[in-house]
Amino acid sequence: MEKQLSLIKFFKETRQQTESICQPLEPEDYLSQPTENVSPPKWHLGHTTWFYEALILKVFHKNYKVFDEDYFFLFNSYYNTLGDRTNRFERGNQTRPVLKKIYEYRSYVDYELVKFLENNSSEVEKIYSILELGINHEKQHQELLITDIKYILYQNKVLPSYQSFKNNIFQANKPLNNEMIKVDEGIYQIGYNGPDFHFDNEEGEHKVYLEAFKFAKHTVTNEAYLEFILNDGYKDFRHWLSDGWTWINENNIESPLFWKNIDGKWFYYTLGGLREIDLHAPVCHISFYEADAYATWAGKRLLTEFEWEVAAKKFANNKTDSNCLEKNILSPIPAHKSVNQLLGNVWEWTNSAYLAYPYFKIAEGALAEYNGKFMANQMVLRGGSCATPLSQVRIHYRNFFYLHERWQFTGIRLAEYS
Amino acid sequence: MEKQLSLIKFFKETRQQTESICQPLEPEDYLSQPTENVSPPKWHLGHTTWFYEALILKVFHKNYKVFDEDYFFLFNSYYNTLGDRTNRFERGNQTRPVLKKIYEYRSYVDYELVKFLENNSSEVEKIYSILELGINHEKQHQELLITDIKYILYQNKVLPSYQSFKNNIFQANKPLNNEMIKVDEGIYQIGYNGPDFHFDNEEGEHKVYLEAFKFAKHTVTNEAYLEFILNDGYKDFRHWLSDGWTWINENNIESPLFWKNIDGKWFYYTLGGLREIDLHAPVCHISFYEADAYATWAGKRLLTEFEWEVAAKKFANNKTDSNCLEKNILSPIPAHKSVNQLLGNVWEWTNSAYLAYPYFKIAEGALAEYNGKFMANQMVLRGGSCATPLSQVRIHYRNFFYLHERWQFTGIRLAEYS
Amino acid sequence: MEKQLSLIKFFKETRQQTESICQPLEPEDYLSQPTENVSPPKWHLGHTTWFYEALILKVFHKNYKVFDEDYFFLFNSYYNTLGDRTNRFERGNQTRPVLKKIYEYRSYVDYELVKFLENNSSEVEKIYSILELGINHEKQHQELLITDIKYILYQNKVLPSYQSFKNNIFQANKPLNNEMIKVDEGIYQIGYNGPDFHFDNEEGEHKVYLEAFKFAKHTVTNEAYLEFILNDGYKDFRHWLSDGWTWINENNIESPLFWKNIDGKWFYYTLGGLREIDLHAPVCHISFYEADAYATWAGKRLLTEFEWEVAAKKFANNKTDSNCLEKNILSPIPAHKSVNQLLGNVWEWTNSAYLAYPYFKIAEGALAEYNGKFMANQMVLRGGSCATPLSQVRIHYRNFFYLHERWQFTGIRLAEYS
Amino acid sequence: MEKQLSLIKFFKETRQQTESICQPLEPEDYLSQPTENVSPPKWHLGHTTWFYEALILKVFHKNYKVFDEDYFFLFNSYYNTLGDRTNRFERGNQTRPVLKKIYEYRSYVDYELVKFLENNSSEVEKIYSILELGINHEKQHQELLITDIKYILYQNKVLPSYQSFKNNIFQANKPLNNEMIKVDEGIYQIGYNGPDFHFDNEEGEHKVYLEAFKFAKHTVTNEAYLEFILNDGYKDFRHWLSDGWTWINENNIESPLFWKNIDGKWFYYTLGGLREIDLHAPVCHISFYEADAYATWAGKRLLTEFEWEVAAKKFANNKTDSNCLEKNILSPIPAHKSVNQLLGNVWEWTNSAYLAYPYFKIAEGALAEYNGKFMANQMVLRGGSCATPLSQVRIHYRNFFYLHERWQFTGIRLAEYS
Repeated sequence: MEKQLSLIKFFKETRQQTESICQPLEPEDYLSQPTENVSPPKWHLGHTTWFYEALILKVFHKNYKVFDEDYFFLFNSYYNTLGDRTNRFERGNQTRPVLKKIYEYRSYVDYELVKFLENNSSEVEKIYSILELGINHEKQHQELLITDIKYILYQNKVLPSYQSFKNNIFQANKPLNNEMIKVDEGIYQIGYNGPDFHFDNEEGEHKVYLEAFKFAKHTVTNEAYLEFILNDGYKDFRHWLSDGWTWINENNIESPLFWKNIDGKWFYYTLGGLREIDLHAPVCHISFYEADAYATWAGKRLLTEFEWEVAAKKFANNKTDSNCLEKNILSPIPAHKSVNQLLGNVWEWTNSAYLAYPYFKIAEGALAEYNGKFMANQMVLRGGSCATPLSQVRIHYRNFFYLHERWQFTGIRLAEYS
Repeated sequence: MEKQLSLIKFFKETRQQTESICQPLEPEDYLSQPTENVSPPKWHLGHTTWFYEALILKVFHKNYKVFDEDYFFLFNSYYNTLGDRTNRFERGNQTRPVLKKIYEYRSYVDYELVKFLENNSSEVEKIYSILELGINHEKQHQELLITDIKYILYQNKVLPSYQSFKNNIFQANKPLNNEMIKVDEGIYQIGYNGPDFHFDNEEGEHKVYLEAFKFAKHTVTNEAYLEFILNDGYKDFRHWLSDGWTWINENNIESPLFWKNIDGKWFYYTLGGLREIDLHAPVCHISFYEADAYATWAGKRLLTEFEWEVAAKKFANNKTDSNCLEKNILSPIPAHKSVNQLLGNVWEWTNSAYLAYPYFKIAEGALAEYNGKFMANQMVLRGGSCATPLSQVRIHYRNFFYLHERWQFTGIRLAEYS
Repeated sequence: MEKQLSLIKFFKETRQQTESICQPLEPEDYLSQPTENVSPPKWHLGHTTWFYEALILKVFHKNYKVFDEDYFFLFNSYYNTLGDRTNRFERGNQTRPVLKKIYEYRSYVDYELVKFLENNSSEVEKIYSILELGINHEKQHQELLITDIKYILYQNKVLPSYQSFKNNIFQANKPLNNEMIKVDEGIYQIGYNGPDFHFDNEEGEHKVYLEAFKFAKHTVTNEAYLEFILNDGYKDFRHWLSDGWTWINENNIESPLFWKNIDGKWFYYTLGGLREIDLHAPVCHISFYEADAYATWAGKRLLTEFEWEVAAKKFANNKTDSNCLEKNILSPIPAHKSVNQLLGNVWEWTNSAYLAYPYFKIAEGALAEYNGKFMANQMVLRGGSCATPLSQVRIHYRNFFYLHERWQFTGIRLAEYS
Repeated sequence: MEKQLSLIKFFKETRQQTESICQPLEPEDYLSQPTENVSPPKWHLGHTTWFYEALILKVFHKNYKVFDEDYFFLFNSYYNTLGDRTNRFERGNQTRPVLKKIYEYRSYVDYELVKFLENNSSEVEKIYSILELGINHEKQHQELLITDIKYILYQNKVLPSYQSFKNNIFQANKPLNNEMIKVDEGIYQIGYNGPDFHFDNEEGEHKVYLEAFKFAKHTVTNEAYLEFILNDGYKDFRHWLSDGWTWINENNIESPLFWKNIDGKWFYYTLGGLREIDLHAPVCHISFYEADAYATWAGKRLLTEFEWEVAAKKFANNKTDSNCLEKNILSPIPAHKSVNQLLGNVWEWTNSAYLAYPYFKIAEGALAEYNGKFMANQMVLRGGSCATPLSQVRIHYRNFFYLHERWQFTGIRLAEYS
């Protein structure tokens, strides 16, 4: 019962937090979809709401009156189980329903859901477990909102700010010595079996055998990455995976996303506008290909997701101290003395393909489509970023993206065998 | 002097009319660019304003303070002469400047321009000739606004209305007998040399020799076109130009744009929402390929633009009676007793490629890019449509589009040799 | 009867000539299809044979035994009337039937056809008219064989020769003064109505009214075109049609096809191998866009096809003297004193879209697809080239290609109003 | 010394074997490149020769006279280290050098290499190690020759045979009970450290921890796979990875490659021509997506490459008995009583991404590009196929392809946790 009350509280906070994220936007910002995998904020607002309506209210609430039947088509993301849906690349063409309507939709579902939860007594366990998933789903979309908004605003010739720039307090720092920390070989437990919320892809504690390895205490800085650029790192095929070499050449990639060279000086776009690069902050917005090429150039390698998890279990700092969404900095900050930033700040590309853990079982019904069907062609990222909600910053969390994607806050931590 | 005063009046009316067209839109509608050659209404509002600023105020007004330098990049359409510009397909990504700013831009330029015109005494002739062009340019964009808005709203799953449907009064009409009207062979004068406003591509009266021909008094109706569809017109290669056959097959074209077959019944999207097809209204929103295939199937042909012009000079009804933009019906209406609708209602595809008239001379400077550079791969349309401003409904006006384009109000008038 | 005997003789000669053209090829050359609109020589050999089999033997010869049923699928080009066919772009994948088989096919059809013609007495007129078309069809493919072979061999890193270079005798010539020749305004007859062979698209003598004009005695030389290149002609948008400007930029076009700049010196690939450019020979292998841009840059224009025909009727030299296929030079030669080269040497792009003449009627059956269905998006070329069989070098002949195509021997003749 | 003599013998046999594979081809077959990743046989013949010339003769033989400098450009595959090269997709356009020349090239290099090896006394170890790699490289191309030839011949409307069909003796077999074989959990050694030839990607014995699992004694048959098809396996998204679902829908995939449904009956193309499907033979020519979807539909899963290797070490039959290239059947055969066919017959897709083993080190120089740079976006296949040379049929061998590729002889072995 207590768990349920706290879940309802968590639900309300989450709903509020999502709307706060959108608060600085102008009306047109809500519609824009400059590239297929960036969704309009409007769509995020509707889709996160649709999840509760489609998977809870419509299923368990007998007298529930649907807000608008069309929304089932408009706000389904990829759930084939739940019927037809707008083609992903056409989300930005849906000028209607207008924003005001979508906010009404949110209020309606929030009100109906809370009322239903408070009055309902059967199937409680199942409903609350879906509710918990729905909240965590919305948390994931909060991060996507931040990264999509950054990408959307960046398309404007007049590079507008989303909020004032907040991490300049860190700019004066000297870079710290990036020592290598050793982990012994042996059998380790990976994955999670406990009572706290987690996605199906993290589930299932199981053993892996690891060789001894070392990992860098800090992620790679912009300064270090600039050296790679100046060393013609983007022009020398020897550092690159074959697919990566093709990708940078076909797309004329010569620096991380959001970087601009103006009269020989490097700037990047931040949610606080265009700024000179902070040399001591971690490099960010790079693809797996770039992370791998940098590591090769540096004579090192990336961690596997298993090594990362073992390292984090031993060494991660308190997650509440991490640079996560709730800190509202929304930009990676330089390393401080004793902090290794394994959690928060930037997602760390691992050299592990996103595949199932042993005994992984696809869920029943619509939720079957949540994680398992993406287990192809993607790499795992670990640790969370400055845009990740605190609740998602966890050691077992497995994020995954295609090897060329880089609009998330993604960075590099080096490793080597010892 | 009088001409100048009346031009200023015309300018003010036009500026007002453009904004009226946008009045029914919701904020998101202004940003949408569902396909490359449909521009966001926001962009039209800015671009028509930019034209006066870039070609008059910036050039002739010595103390003019530019509203915002960035707008020169944002709102240039295709004038290489005037510098870099937003890629056409990225117009829909410019969420900023926000709409309110663009309306401020309009007010600012309007105010500055009128003030300047009223006070200026030198180079009057040249300035007013550019002003006249600018107004006519804005008139062209008024038509594009209507057709772009129709296309934008049509992308919405919930097919919204732009205004209430207005041409139902005509729906009960019986179709009229579509008699063929004869024109004798001979030498005819084509083009225009007079004092009234006209574009450079209409200029230059010159002789053409025409064989005797007949043209249909009325354009092809939806009923007649449906017969073509039901007769498997879209499935029989013999009616089609080779490029047209490829185009319909690669794009799965089986009916005019905006048509939907719902449970065996044909509907189309209008600016008044989805409606059952009006059998007696002219078929509309078809490509040149479809117009040509229909004519072939019907054992007839399209007029050349020269034949059309000769026919219109002899037989066109008073243009002020035509179904044009100012009538605010925004949908083609059925033929009435004595009216041939050569002017207004639907643009009529001709079988003439868009090429230069004899002695055509490309203008100097930026205006060189207005018409001449498009004289390749396009066909001429004549007569104006229900979305054409009355001032553009003129017998010499040469409209032109690519052979596959059909988001304009385009129809068919049949012809034959006699 | 005499006409028939001479047609059989013409048939035999043509069949022989086609095979002679292929004689210098290596086995692999016969299969190559480096781009969709270049067909493998093997395919040309089969297709020209298929034409007689499909349209004469199979239709009129009651006891005819088809050589191989599969060939009807393999060697149909674009005749929907005659059933399914290999996709054009897959012609180069048909490694079988092997070449030897195709030559057997040719012999078989030749033998059967001649035997049939000699013994047949009914429907003679119709059969001979199709035969005449078939021979002229094969003549057209002879030209395509030459241009396709040139394109195929050019793909090889080792640029092989097809035959020894033959037009060096002309290289020493001084360029001639390129005077402008005047033609008066008036009504002229265009097209052909006589008894000699001609395609349906040339048929129908009809009047056109022409303004007075002047045309250049000689086509534009490589020297003159180089001046355009060196004058940054390919970098200045003002000379280009909008579609042309897009085309050169998307395809990085900076010179005619087959040109290579090696260490600052211009060379071109000829059927006699790579050679330094002959400055006095006509520029060749250019698109309509380049022809038009050059003319604009030069302050002139292209002729219309009507002007060209009128000029040629008045001034063309004897066609037997022209540089055509039978001369076996296969490369355009410089102008000589009194020769205007309106016929042969290079095809001349006109500023006329390829459209129907008045009263043009599409033929019945398969031949309906011969010419009419291509009347969209193409421009007319006139006069024939160094690869055109003498029989096709005629004043009324209307050749047509898309505006960007340039693997034919295509050049420029300038004109202006007088 | 003995090892060297035997390597020279192996070299000569391999060279001979490659040419034997091409012996049944017609001249045009050698040139064809119907899709980018199928290379013309001519190119394979040249490229395998180039490898010895570029990496041995040119480097170690001081007085070596290169056969033709152009061949360095023409026959380089993907070695950036070794300079520019023909674009992969343009290999099929290289009609020259003609086939005869390439065979001369082979003879020349063979002669020079053997002579050099017999007379050379310095750097012996290094040279022989590259020679061994070169031979194994040619062995890999022998397999590609078989699969590319199959794909090339399949493009022909007349589906020609490469050789007579040879595995009908197995056709009458009853399918065997496909029992599941258990393997215990524990720590296992993976990879190879011994003296025999192996590629760098197999190197490095290291421990992995495996959960207990079971694997199917036999691979999935055509009969079993047909059940999946008839059960609408290709139409139900629930079985498919998201990328796989997109892939089958965009490419209209409804059955394995080479399958054709003719009047309701299933046939497939084999190197012995089109044949009715052998129900008891293993399904073949499927993508990873199909293998995974089938396993999901069957309620099972694929093995990881580690599980596969452990299973093979324990249970694989003698590799000399396997259905490999030297058996010359070139088509997968049904399972026999006691044979599990882990080796040969069909490659088995594993659910392991192709990634580096611990301590994997990229080689120096050109060989750095052999394996490591492909470690992205591909899955591992194990066991060899009916087209794999016996020497490549080894338990540690790691083959890898993209998830959609299926022109190799690829099949499915099911697994589950026990």
